[in-house]
Amino acid sequence: MGAPDFSVARNKEGKNFRSLSGKLWYNRTIMTQKINLSPLTGMAELLPKQQLQFEKWKQIVSETYSMYGFTPIDTPVLERKEVLFAKAGGETEKQIYQLTKGDTEMALRFDLTVPLARFVANYQEKLVFPFKRQHIAKVYRGEKPQKGRFREFIQADADIIGRGSLDEKYDAEIIDLIATTIKRLNLGKFIIRINNRKIVTGFLKAIKVMDEAQVLTLLDKAEKIGEQKLKQELSYLRLDTLEIRKVTQFAKIRGTCQEVVQALLALDLDEPLLNQGIMELQTVDEALQALQLAQENFIFDCAIIRGLDYYTGTIFETQLVEAPQLGSICGGGRYENLVGSFGKTKMPGVGMSIGLTRLFAQAMELQLLDETKEAAAQVVVVPLSENLDEILKIVQQLRKMELKTDVYLQKADLKKKMKYVNDLGAPYAVIIGDDELNKKKVQLKNMSTGEQEELNLPQVKARIEENN
Amino acid sequence: MGAPDFSVARNKEGKNFRSLSGKLWYNRTIMTQKINLSPLTGMAELLPKQQLQFEKWKQIVSETYSMYGFTPIDTPVLERKEVLFAKAGGETEKQIYQLTKGDTEMALRFDLTVPLARFVANYQEKLVFPFKRQHIAKVYRGEKPQKGRFREFIQADADIIGRGSLDEKYDAEIIDLIATTIKRLNLGKFIIRINNRKIVTGFLKAIKVMDEAQVLTLLDKAEKIGEQKLKQELSYLRLDTLEIRKVTQFAKIRGTCQEVVQALLALDLDEPLLNQGIMELQTVDEALQALQLAQENFIFDCAIIRGLDYYTGTIFETQLVEAPQLGSICGGGRYENLVGSFGKTKMPGVGMSIGLTRLFAQAMELQLLDETKEAAAQVVVVPLSENLDEILKIVQQLRKMELKTDVYLQKADLKKKMKYVNDLGAPYAVIIGDDELNKKKVQLKNMSTGEQEELNLPQVKARIEENN
Repeated sequence: MGAPDFSVARNKEGKNFRSLSGKLWYNRTIMTQKINLSPLTGMAELLPKQQLQFEKWKQIVSETYSMYGFTPIDTPVLERKEVLFAKAGGETEKQIYQLTKGDTEMALRFDLTVPLARFVANYQEKLVFPFKRQHIAKVYRGEKPQKGRFREFIQADADIIGRGSLDEKYDAEIIDLIATTIKRLNLGKFIIRINNRKIVTGFLKAIKVMDEAQVLTLLDKAEKIGEQKLKQELSYLRLDTLEIRKVTQFAKIRGTCQEVVQALLALDLDEPLLNQGIMELQTVDEALQALQLAQENFIFDCAIIRGLDYYTGTIFETQLVEAPQLGSICGGGRYENLVGSFGKTKMPGVGMSIGLTRLFAQAMELQLLDETKEAAAQVVVVPLSENLDEILKIVQQLRKMELKTDVYLQKADLKKKMKYVNDLGAPYAVIIGDDELNKKKVQLKNMSTGEQEELNLPQVKARIEENN
Repeated sequence: MGAPDFSVARNKEGKNFRSLSGKLWYNRTIMTQKINLSPLTGMAELLPKQQLQFEKWKQIVSETYSMYGFTPIDTPVLERKEVLFAKAGGETEKQIYQLTKGDTEMALRFDLTVPLARFVANYQEKLVFPFKRQHIAKVYRGEKPQKGRFREFIQADADIIGRGSLDEKYDAEIIDLIATTIKRLNLGKFIIRINNRKIVTGFLKAIKVMDEAQVLTLLDKAEKIGEQKLKQELSYLRLDTLEIRKVTQFAKIRGTCQEVVQALLALDLDEPLLNQGIMELQTVDEALQALQLAQENFIFDCAIIRGLDYYTGTIFETQLVEAPQLGSICGGGRYENLVGSFGKTKMPGVGMSIGLTRLFAQAMELQLLDETKEAAAQVVVVPLSENLDEILKIVQQLRKMELKTDVYLQKADLKKKMKYVNDLGAPYAVIIGDDELNKKKVQLKNMSTGEQEELNLPQVKARIEENN
């Protein structure tokens, strides 16, 4: 048959022939040189060893979310345009991948929150509230390509949605979940910085600044621009010296709950919204103490604002202590109403999101990842006998023993076969020649130590488990 | 704050204010009535309980593929248009979701094989061959909406790609993998029908029919149209009575490898391609015997053609014995060259694919699914004390014991709290009042039997594991 193109079947004379469904397939081999085989710009793709590590990450995250009772959902990547655009705005709108098929205007989701809002609004009569859902899936943003930014990336979201109301203790559940997840990903020391939007807006209300939103915007970037620049920008907004001092002082308040509350009370502002925020902060702190979250893993910090405008209560960001340059690796907070224009019932919620693709890419670059223990197989069977069928019997027995078993079935010399085992990163080779077949034994080779032992299959299983 | 739209923050006076990034968000609440909240037509979406079952399926499939040494890859859902169109054709081309962003023409993948071909061609220097990959992911086809057809669906593919050559024994590995996977999905009796394309084309060559491709097309639908119609259609293609008899006779050959080979030899056709096919069939059969695949799970069957035109050797389809109306639930085969126009090196392969979304939907409908044992949580903690923080301590201890633990933190009466546990389908409730807090015990309630016991936490763990 020669070497036909994947999509082109040829007869012996080399002419194309009709496909089975009667359509004429045509040979596009002439295009060979022109096709760009790399993935689209900004879309991540991993080689197998890295992918195995990433799969492990996804599994850890998913299992941790499950341990806290978050149930998985999976919505389509494509949504109606009207759904996504009801919730998008400004920059986000420009970044949306849109398409039309037939009469339907669609778009690729840019986050997992809008799909959650639609899902909850659509199925509210069939869901159990508070609804604790996890969703680990791809989202799309046509951002300018730059380092650490992806146009297709996996987010790992966990949210708790109440119907009508949602107790503040749930905020602590989400914060504790972040801590457990980051611990299990083994990324070193981390700190969750916690604030409450009512404290921020209450404070601004109390000091009576003219344009709350503009000051909020400045506070949000205060850490980035530094104190001098912050003061300057605040003066452009016509805040007087006293106001500027109060704002810069506010932005520096951080510490334990008690310390932060004392500092806030010392400002001597009697504003109900601020007081409400302080109470919520204390509720969350008490719950975090009860959950025994270590004090080194969280801090209350008035500089945390969260750029998104829908948060209305507790807000938080997470930083790796040894890699502060990464910024927040996991943030979230409390919002007043998830469903908004999608429904009439008010649905408050609290949630968090990890940008898993980005975090993994950064962790690879900073060498924060554990050394790979993951391999495509635990054992690779290497036949030295011509009797492949006898060897397949052994392969099957190893798999029945729940060992992840691969077998090299190509004709090749021993060197090439062992190179395969080595390249795969498999920890063990099971080498079988005619001699071993006769003795009903195999040679188990430990690929890292080079040690080789003659064993029967139950011994192989025992040895591998013992070293696991 | 009232009930602001999700994307709109308002100040106390109810006016919209600028978002933190300085953009003006506008209130789209007026659109409320018009937004269609259902997923796009033809795109599946499951409620949590079904989703938990589907997640279990994905996990079973992925773990089974891993047990055979297939390593996961994950390519972007979007591919360059030139990549997808180099491999698509006819109907498929029309079904592709296309979009343009900036200058880039893109499309959503319609299968996982074209992305595999691009991946292998692009990274061939970095991959280990034979390359055994699994890919469980979404694909997109804008088909006419009809029952059991989806426009977004998950496929679970496993392929083995050789560089230059690939031993035929690998075909048996794939067939055996199908059997193990279907067994683990617990879908009842099944049979894998196996054929070889060289036998079919060799036979047609030997009897010297004029238009091989047209006869092949007819053979492919022979089972559907029945013998009478087949004969009629063959006569339209100007086959004479003898030829027609031979073709219909051929299409009925099925049985053990030995039976099929005898029937083929009885046709007394000396055609090298046919003979080659027979040899390959025997090689696969011997390997399947060695792998101890039960005889009731596979049959050799000359009526199997596989509509796709790129298969060149072993081909197979899988049927559920108790649900033959579903047709083939898992098919695949051997192809001569995966990469085709994407590269110069010939890369033969063998692979299979399960349309997981469709199969799951069908299994639900036919009630072939196991009764759900999956629940969002194993244990739901139900507080009867006001002291939620003391209760959170217990929640944390249960989670540290690796029990999937949820807690109901809303203010509600006992009835409503127990309804939550029941609606979630959680097998156990852990009920804690002030009395239990003092005694450092909890009430463990078995939700299916209604039994309730006073236990300490290690006893809770033990009791749950014992009943698992």
